[in-house]
Amino acid sequence: MTQKLSGIAASNGVAVAPAYMLVDPDLTFDKKTISDADAEKARLHSALDASIKELQQIKAVAEKSLGSEEAEVFEAHITILQDPEMIGQIEGKIDSDKVNAEEALKEITDNFIAIFEGMTDNAYMQERAADVRDVTKRVMSHLLGKNLPNPALINSEVVIVAHDLTPSDTAQLNRKFVKGFITDLGGRTSHSAIMSRTLEIPAVVGTEDATTTIKQGDKVIVDGLDGIGIVDPSDEDVTTYTKKGDDFAKQKAEWDKLKDEASVSKDGKNFTIAANIGTPDDVAAVNDNGGEAVGLFRSEFLYMDSAELPDEEKQFQAYKKAAEDMHGKQVVVRTMDIGGDKHLDYLPLPEEMNPFLGYRAIRISLKQPDLFRPQLRALLRASAFGNIAIMFPMIGTVDEFKRARAIYDEERQNLINDGVKVADHIDVGMMMEVPAAVLIADKLAKYADFFSIGTNDLIQYTFAADRGNEHVSYLYQPYNPSLLRLIKKVIDSAHAEGKWAGMCGEMAGDQVAVPLLMGMGLDEYSMSATSMLQTRSLMKKLDTKSTADLVDKALDAETNEDVADMVKQFMAGLK
Amino acid sequence: MTQKLSGIAASNGVAVAPAYMLVDPDLTFDKKTISDADAEKARLHSALDASIKELQQIKAVAEKSLGSEEAEVFEAHITILQDPEMIGQIEGKIDSDKVNAEEALKEITDNFIAIFEGMTDNAYMQERAADVRDVTKRVMSHLLGKNLPNPALINSEVVIVAHDLTPSDTAQLNRKFVKGFITDLGGRTSHSAIMSRTLEIPAVVGTEDATTTIKQGDKVIVDGLDGIGIVDPSDEDVTTYTKKGDDFAKQKAEWDKLKDEASVSKDGKNFTIAANIGTPDDVAAVNDNGGEAVGLFRSEFLYMDSAELPDEEKQFQAYKKAAEDMHGKQVVVRTMDIGGDKHLDYLPLPEEMNPFLGYRAIRISLKQPDLFRPQLRALLRASAFGNIAIMFPMIGTVDEFKRARAIYDEERQNLINDGVKVADHIDVGMMMEVPAAVLIADKLAKYADFFSIGTNDLIQYTFAADRGNEHVSYLYQPYNPSLLRLIKKVIDSAHAEGKWAGMCGEMAGDQVAVPLLMGMGLDEYSMSATSMLQTRSLMKKLDTKSTADLVDKALDAETNEDVADMVKQFMAGLK
Repeated sequence: MTQKLSGIAASNGVAVAPAYMLVDPDLTFDKKTISDADAEKARLHSALDASIKELQQIKAVAEKSLGSEEAEVFEAHITILQDPEMIGQIEGKIDSDKVNAEEALKEITDNFIAIFEGMTDNAYMQERAADVRDVTKRVMSHLLGKNLPNPALINSEVVIVAHDLTPSDTAQLNRKFVKGFITDLGGRTSHSAIMSRTLEIPAVVGTEDATTTIKQGDKVIVDGLDGIGIVDPSDEDVTTYTKKGDDFAKQKAEWDKLKDEASVSKDGKNFTIAANIGTPDDVAAVNDNGGEAVGLFRSEFLYMDSAELPDEEKQFQAYKKAAEDMHGKQVVVRTMDIGGDKHLDYLPLPEEMNPFLGYRAIRISLKQPDLFRPQLRALLRASAFGNIAIMFPMIGTVDEFKRARAIYDEERQNLINDGVKVADHIDVGMMMEVPAAVLIADKLAKYADFFSIGTNDLIQYTFAADRGNEHVSYLYQPYNPSLLRLIKKVIDSAHAEGKWAGMCGEMAGDQVAVPLLMGMGLDEYSMSATSMLQTRSLMKKLDTKSTADLVDKALDAETNEDVADMVKQFMAGLK
Repeated sequence: MTQKLSGIAASNGVAVAPAYMLVDPDLTFDKKTISDADAEKARLHSALDASIKELQQIKAVAEKSLGSEEAEVFEAHITILQDPEMIGQIEGKIDSDKVNAEEALKEITDNFIAIFEGMTDNAYMQERAADVRDVTKRVMSHLLGKNLPNPALINSEVVIVAHDLTPSDTAQLNRKFVKGFITDLGGRTSHSAIMSRTLEIPAVVGTEDATTTIKQGDKVIVDGLDGIGIVDPSDEDVTTYTKKGDDFAKQKAEWDKLKDEASVSKDGKNFTIAANIGTPDDVAAVNDNGGEAVGLFRSEFLYMDSAELPDEEKQFQAYKKAAEDMHGKQVVVRTMDIGGDKHLDYLPLPEEMNPFLGYRAIRISLKQPDLFRPQLRALLRASAFGNIAIMFPMIGTVDEFKRARAIYDEERQNLINDGVKVADHIDVGMMMEVPAAVLIADKLAKYADFFSIGTNDLIQYTFAADRGNEHVSYLYQPYNPSLLRLIKKVIDSAHAEGKWAGMCGEMAGDQVAVPLLMGMGLDEYSMSATSMLQTRSLMKKLDTKSTADLVDKALDAETNEDVADMVKQFMAGLK
């Protein structure tokens, strides 16, 4: 029977393929008293052997399709299953307590996990806890005669169905065969959603019921344009949605023709469409998609992909490469945004009850200038090789900006004194993501060369709602007049001082938001590289006068929904 | 040698007394191999016996000075020290591994703690982990020949010196002997600070170095008026500060004379000075200190002091008592503000990465109307017995307020239909603590009967800084123009629709903030009962015209410090 699921459209496109359930089976069991301990230990060993064999197979496939680094984790799992200390304790439990292998396995591994997890100041041991939990699941599944999903082994086209997708899940997926995603949880800014857009795989997230409605092998349609999933579709559905997917592909081909054009409104006003990147290698996609700038280079990826603090030279090389590869187009580098949900093994930070409201980003840089100064020096040195701009994350007060800028000025002077070449002018700006900063943007605009609005954080602080928390996801309200008023204040404050204003959050590429942002006069739109051409196409259809009228109405509305409806009506009126 | 400490003035008054160090001694030790296991077990038992004896003594004192409930925790600790399973395991460890008692104690208790803490969904077992940690500390101190602080045993006047004060620390203190507090950590809104104000004990918090500078028995001056601590003061210092304390006491006596006067500015404008309370019993202090209303009745204390969900009848009795005891003066009850840092054992909430940005307050009430409706019914029924007003916490959008109000209207109609008496009119308003709500206050003012600004949360969201996190405590900036602009928006929006605006955060009783709030026309000031008369006295000295001029300048300033300086200059000019 055909069933329909609705969720959040997370990545454009349409997919039709059989479901692959990336869902753990029920591994509950009853504790039993056994009489034949040797037979029970034989059951245990046969489950261990099957698990090891399976892991070796997965490892071999993963090495070929994903690379040796991704495959290493499976080797670590095999090692755990061969650990004589742990196996010995499980056997001992079966012998002494006369319990079934499932119970003995659970008790002993729970102990190991509790002890590892108890070492809260040791990231390595915490990861070992996760590994033990993973392999225990695998052995338990064999004891119970059930199958764990093994995404690394997928070798035909599928739609992945999951409760949620973790980074470790997605690392195991072979892009060639994964045609779509559909998940129970997540919003437009969840890991699953961002990753699906990067990979250009159609995705619907936050359906709530995907894993309970869909069964392994069911034919599934994923409509990432409208946020719909269809299970066991009729032939008519398949025809309709296949056409919809083809139309989208054609549309996309049209967009691709805009690659070398300017980003200009119908009435001739120029804007800048830029991309968010994580590493210098991402610049290729920016150029392929006609980007006019890099609006956000997340420098923390340099820190997170490293086993130790990246030194000035290593950072310099990365910034220089990005600047050179952009051939004189601007590259806005955000200084270290560590803390919050981003941690480094080599940089211990305090345990915090609310890390998003804690010691992070510029707050760390100002307190630990030994981290900040080498980054500024690397950026200053790289500025000689292209068009580098610098922005500080999480600025909340005029003081903070002035202090950060003073450190920058010092390092600039130091380099000049040492005869090192730096660019004559570097734009030094700030993220607008802390409400306090927006509220005093008129003052900050005297000191900052530009503002870049970070909507993900700005929304979560303005609505006091963690963007990763499904229980308050209804408060992700990018069109709410309260948020639009903040955005307008940023833009107006920048313009009053002759500065420019950009946006580097998810909202900059959101097709409902773009008409509003144009109407407010936002100068720069920084988004996923794959969203840029669609946005350029939309801009060409809009004029600045009628979008400004739309903004006047939107700022005076009461709710997020009211504004979304206004924009939809406005867009319908254009056709 | 005299040494000076500066910190945050947390509770007014001056104290001079010897220091009592509420600081754990260094309990690190070396692991040793021992040859005589019996001797080592004897050392263990002598430490256990000494610990039990000490706990019995503390329990006896605590029972007398603090009451039997506070003493119960010590009985629980004694029980743990007599647990044969745990003692047996420690002895076994000494026997089998030939390690010293310290090492055996640590290894075995760490295991217990890890296992208890691993049961993350079981609050009872989590508390047991804390208990085991506590008693282990005590036994370890005896093994190492060191003394733990035993605050329950204090029997002469002291100044308490601590890293920070936890609720369990303060529960053990005998108010008669504790003359002052001085701590390393904390801000004006930390537990230590709020409690010191409630107890009217002079306090300086956030000195950073108190515990490293001061030694047990050192003479210490705590100046809670200016946030200064002096260690080993000169005779001259003692004279000066004793006089300062006496002057303050006289000043306080002057304030007390204002008990029955109105809260009125120099130029004759009337304001309302109100109190924040947690239980109906707190009403006595409100009347004693001349309160004109209860501006915030934190109804969650009803939930937190209960082992099960308080039913409609129990809530009705509490609200009715508060309303009656206030004799017709308004009692503003905030509906359930659970979640964030407040949890109920009987109401499991999701584990959250950032609870302050999570599922809390009205978000729970709207999703679980089975909790919300009985509270509204209790409030409506109580409204027949006095002047009750209702406000919803954590409203972020117009939608949320309308939904909450609709449920209220339904329950009101239900009661009227059932012939239950309710007041003809009840003010139904909302807290202003989510930035998004402030930004759209002009729209919300059409639906809400009043606003009450909750500065603690509003500041923490506006600056994106957890108010309990010492690493970002510099971002508690109540005078920052960014925050003042939000406050002004709330007041102006309320007045434009003929509604009133109050404040029920710490800021309402802050003597630097009051001139600014008066200048903005804030109608109601709700604070600790003990701060009310001082504020009434201040109001009499200020006129609305010159404070309004001060506000104009403050709103155009750049930093928190600039505004604080402006107010100080302004106040100096009055004299």
